Amino acid sequence: MAESQNKKDLAHARTKVSFNVKDMTNFLYQGAANVDQRRYIMDLVAKEPIFNKDDWGWLSHTDAVKRGIAMSTRLAELMMEHDLNDLDFATMMEAIDDTLPIVLHNGAFIPVITAQGTEEQIEKWIPPAQKFQIIGCYAQTELGHGSNLSCLETTATFIKETDEWEINSTTFTAAKWWIGGLGALCTHAVVQARLFIDGKDYGAHVFVVPLRSLDDHKPFPTVQVGDIGPKAYNGFNKMDNGFARFTKHRIPRENMLMRFSKVSRDGVFTKPPHAKLSYGSMVLLRSVLIKQMALYLSRATTVTTRYLTVRRQFNNPTTRNDADLNPGLETQVINYPMVQNRLFPMIAQAYALFAAGSVMMEMYINLMTSISTGNIDALAEVHAMSSALKSYCTTIGAAGTEESRKLMGGHGFSYFTGLAHLFASIVPSNTYEGDNYVLTQQMARYLLKEVKTARTSPEKVTPYSRYLLLALNKPAFERTTCAVARPEDWLKPEIQLAAFEHRCARLAFELSDAVDAAGADPANSKTWSDHNIECYRISHAHAQYTMVLWFIKAVKDAQDPAADEERRAEPASVKVLEILSNLHALHTIQTNLVDFVEDGYLSPAQCLSLRAQVKALVASLADDAIGLVDAFDHPDFLLNSALGASDGDAYKRLWEKAQTEPLNKREVCDGYEEYIRPLLKKHGDFKM
Amino acid sequence: MAESQNKKDLAHARTKVSFNVKDMTNFLYQGAANVDQRRYIMDLVAKEPIFNKDDWGWLSHTDAVKRGIAMSTRLAELMMEHDLNDLDFATMMEAIDDTLPIVLHNGAFIPVITAQGTEEQIEKWIPPAQKFQIIGCYAQTELGHGSNLSCLETTATFIKETDEWEINSTTFTAAKWWIGGLGALCTHAVVQARLFIDGKDYGAHVFVVPLRSLDDHKPFPTVQVGDIGPKAYNGFNKMDNGFARFTKHRIPRENMLMRFSKVSRDGVFTKPPHAKLSYGSMVLLRSVLIKQMALYLSRATTVTTRYLTVRRQFNNPTTRNDADLNPGLETQVINYPMVQNRLFPMIAQAYALFAAGSVMMEMYINLMTSISTGNIDALAEVHAMSSALKSYCTTIGAAGTEESRKLMGGHGFSYFTGLAHLFASIVPSNTYEGDNYVLTQQMARYLLKEVKTARTSPEKVTPYSRYLLLALNKPAFERTTCAVARPEDWLKPEIQLAAFEHRCARLAFELSDAVDAAGADPANSKTWSDHNIECYRISHAHAQYTMVLWFIKAVKDAQDPAADEERRAEPASVKVLEILSNLHALHTIQTNLVDFVEDGYLSPAQCLSLRAQVKALVASLADDAIGLVDAFDHPDFLLNSALGASDGDAYKRLWEKAQTEPLNKREVCDGYEEYIRPLLKKHGDFKM
Repeated sequence: MAESQNKKDLAHARTKVSFNVKDMTNFLYQGAANVDQRRYIMDLVAKEPIFNKDDWGWLSHTDAVKRGIAMSTRLAELMMEHDLNDLDFATMMEAIDDTLPIVLHNGAFIPVITAQGTEEQIEKWIPPAQKFQIIGCYAQTELGHGSNLSCLETTATFIKETDEWEINSTTFTAAKWWIGGLGALCTHAVVQARLFIDGKDYGAHVFVVPLRSLDDHKPFPTVQVGDIGPKAYNGFNKMDNGFARFTKHRIPRENMLMRFSKVSRDGVFTKPPHAKLSYGSMVLLRSVLIKQMALYLSRATTVTTRYLTVRRQFNNPTTRNDADLNPGLETQVINYPMVQNRLFPMIAQAYALFAAGSVMMEMYINLMTSISTGNIDALAEVHAMSSALKSYCTTIGAAGTEESRKLMGGHGFSYFTGLAHLFASIVPSNTYEGDNYVLTQQMARYLLKEVKTARTSPEKVTPYSRYLLLALNKPAFERTTCAVARPEDWLKPEIQLAAFEHRCARLAFELSDAVDAAGADPANSKTWSDHNIECYRISHAHAQYTMVLWFIKAVKDAQDPAADEERRAEPASVKVLEILSNLHALHTIQTNLVDFVEDGYLSPAQCLSLRAQVKALVASLADDAIGLVDAFDHPDFLLNSALGASDGDAYKRLWEKAQTEPLNKREVCDGYEEYIRPLLKKHGDFKM
Repeated sequence: MAESQNKKDLAHARTKVSFNVKDMTNFLYQGAANVDQRRYIMDLVAKEPIFNKDDWGWLSHTDAVKRGIAMSTRLAELMMEHDLNDLDFATMMEAIDDTLPIVLHNGAFIPVITAQGTEEQIEKWIPPAQKFQIIGCYAQTELGHGSNLSCLETTATFIKETDEWEINSTTFTAAKWWIGGLGALCTHAVVQARLFIDGKDYGAHVFVVPLRSLDDHKPFPTVQVGDIGPKAYNGFNKMDNGFARFTKHRIPRENMLMRFSKVSRDGVFTKPPHAKLSYGSMVLLRSVLIKQMALYLSRATTVTTRYLTVRRQFNNPTTRNDADLNPGLETQVINYPMVQNRLFPMIAQAYALFAAGSVMMEMYINLMTSISTGNIDALAEVHAMSSALKSYCTTIGAAGTEESRKLMGGHGFSYFTGLAHLFASIVPSNTYEGDNYVLTQQMARYLLKEVKTARTSPEKVTPYSRYLLLALNKPAFERTTCAVARPEDWLKPEIQLAAFEHRCARLAFELSDAVDAAGADPANSKTWSDHNIECYRISHAHAQYTMVLWFIKAVKDAQDPAADEERRAEPASVKVLEILSNLHALHTIQTNLVDFVEDGYLSPAQCLSLRAQVKALVASLADDAIGLVDAFDHPDFLLNSALGASDGDAYKRLWEKAQTEPLNKREVCDGYEEYIRPLLKKHGDFKM
């Protein structure tokens, strides 16, 4: 094989793409202006030497944290130099491609003080924070407690004599743990601690706590801080996830954030007027994660699609591609149907995730607008939706990345694919910001309320739960079957949506009936946890339904002259988007087929025709796959992948990357004299 | 929470176990002698300082390879000191718990020379290899080629003038790649290269190739060697997976292994009498992997079960356990049904894997005995079976390990769970020794032949494929439905097996019909790859069927007075084993439910009762879970897990492990003066 066969193969594959890649990119990012701005920020990062990724594969955690600190300070400077908005900052973090000690300064420290501090407190802390005269983190999780705030063991006891709080960690299980930025970088933290006055527990509240001296960065004597050690799969390697244990650490009374609860000089506690407004920030974090999954899964499928286009293995006479430039060569791996059927549905998922991320973010913005006018009607639904989608999307994001890596076969186990780093960055999202299993209870609780509403006031059911009305007439509902008569009926969006609606309605009512039969109460019950498996099922079913719905809607908008220009696409793009939308919907049904079959909604013949349609849709994407991943527009700097670079020169890059391995700087390995030579010579020389 | 609550919780959980843990351990390892010997070898490794694992979390690849070399040489010494048999060597590697540069010396270099060398060659190479005067590796894979031997680019050209071979890598894509031991340690390699005489290609053959000088370990001038760089997830970090590129590297003619093919002094090539006897070694490698998956998944579930027994979160009034010592504390996480329903089926899978590993190994041994008497009848079936089971078992092994890690929630992302290292060690097994997807074609091809046999000579169908006979009468077969009438019927092994047999028979005949309809030929066809998705389905279905069958059989043997004593278990153990066997069978059905439903074999009511049975079986294991994982008998040295140690002191160990993090040796982090201080002071001091 000539050295440039790889590049030729990729270039040739690009000639067969049926649509304008640039147009598709504009559709994905909702307009050329966004695409250009994203590229601009990516370039800004790429040209900074400190963000170079060449040696990431062999940094120890110790060296990585130092690098993380250097990257953090440069990032802080860039933020001040460029006055970045939130979107640009997100793009910058996307380009940097690793979480850094400083990210919670802007991501949590500043927002929490802004949200929960008084005007006076905001004025005191925010300007110096914005100028990085202080750097902060957010300390909630403890060694012994994660999400259960009411059982936190860190205490803040009011010392009336000195008008101070005494922050204390009674035992080491009270130590704050996992706190990003705490291990090395931060001077301050906002700390969640249970507030005590005169022995009375007022529950968890938030305090601004100085950690390290601003003179020499040494931790205060009453604060023990450190790094919690490396993470799974080398993930978050540059992050100084840290611990902090307080021993009667004194801070002024004014360091309690008092926008809501207040404590007076006399130690009088005043309750906040109303609680639960903090849901907004959880919705935001989860909505951002959905968008991130679109970016992550699109990166993973980009790398895999490009590499498998240039990887050839076995001289298989089944070469799919009559137009193959080199029929004498081995088959391009991407031409194997098994490979296509694993890979192309994930490309469709990535497209669907782009759509879902946009809709979810719009829902969040609309919610915030409503709340600011005092209307919190939508809060419950948006909160449930963001929970369900966070759970489902981060699950498929992590699983899809690992599946993409495995699709690359042997070389997929090299660090130089770039996908191991990606997976290690994604996978904690399955357990943070609400564990993906626990979180599904939110949507289930919401739907149980909607079932009650459907039964009593059907007109009040919200649009996304309207499918519940289908099941009000139980006998009629149970007789309902799928309308697919001919295989091509599967390609009708209304038939796809009807299937998802039927499934969701059935699962929601089954859950409701079971909960009622057991006399369970979702709020607080002896038996609620018995139903959590079913909560998981209905929540993921609802998430899939909305994903399918939103992608169908996005593709409809793409060809709607009345839609915003940024959401439209050329006819050639729309044609492929329709295939992707169909594949996404039908593949999702196929992957969860038992839910559609076990009550008789689908017949055996419909199952067969569904599987056949999925295969046919996959096959129809063969020539467009490379264009579909190019359209994600991920620059080589971001991918950081020897196998997935845009020129396709996979083998050459893998070879060259290996040459840079520090071990290869020596002709004879470290340890030869000490270990190898004595062993070889133990029984005398071998004469060749 | 007092410091020792963790330990109390674990100790208390152990008081409720219904069976004798030691008896269960003896059952799993087939006799107390094996259990003792395993512990003996584990202790031998544990007391060697070089095998200490405390700093593994922060070794860079550079340091890790040096460690790997030091561990390799000590391992070599131990092998010489103790004269270990294969089983003990396997246990030693299990205890060491990381692949090492030296493992392919005994694992491939010596076996390949022994199998393919002449008596003279064996006498020349094996004694010095056994004394480690030379150390070898096995070089097959290249940058551009993995499994397709016939397209290897490395050539061995006969130079008649000097009676030598010239080993050559024309381009860098011909470089040997991924070769364990090659990067730093080995002096020799057995190299697969295409043999050329007078311009004629005789295909891939094996050559003993010196790589490095025995005087100073420098690579020969005609050999370029090096390390290929780090691997995904820090996996194989101590292994010097290497590359080698040969530039007209000369070796004597006698270095070609000539037991089968031969080349004379005159350059005359003689073909081997018969090929394909190398299948045996593939069967062995795959069979060993199944046993390994039992050990790996049992480790993962041990860690998770112990940690979730001591982790308490939320003061949930649904505390399952009336006998809870501390009803006032939060609920132990293991008491949540959702957690149990994710975790306990994996414990059952681990038990089933123990059984499958044993049977597969027996099949291999029986096969080798037969082959040694000239009977190769069983080769095709055993080869197909080992392929199907390798694919299925390594898939659930890797997925189950990651699922176990995720079950631990936030702390599951710490390196100190031990499970990230475990996953990184397991997951390449999904793509090596035959990619898990490609490999399923072996079983499918075998079953297609068996379908033909069933149709023509039903009496000749082998026992494991006898289910095919069920489908010979198509109309009758299509009318067959599951015999479950009452929920407890699901607990009958014959009903479980009937369901798996029905599913396998249906899928096999569907595949056969589809292949026939398309005029496809599994051996070499234009359309064969169109059926590979269905190959994957039937192969995994068959693997699941045999796993269920073998576990049922093992539990039956456990209570059979006529069975070997080593295979028996006490009645209390048998009772729990029966639950595990039922759970394994029914959970496997539930996970693949659509295959049992889509043709009408199961009714909607049976689906419901199946799900209910799985839940009930899971719940019935609540008190025994800790005993079931203790019975795996994995010492703390092996688990290397702060969260899963045998005393349950999870928080304390996590705290203590963090204190050992090298970053914590400094009060102020590296990088403060250089990066942090200038940023903090840029806009002047902040006055607190």
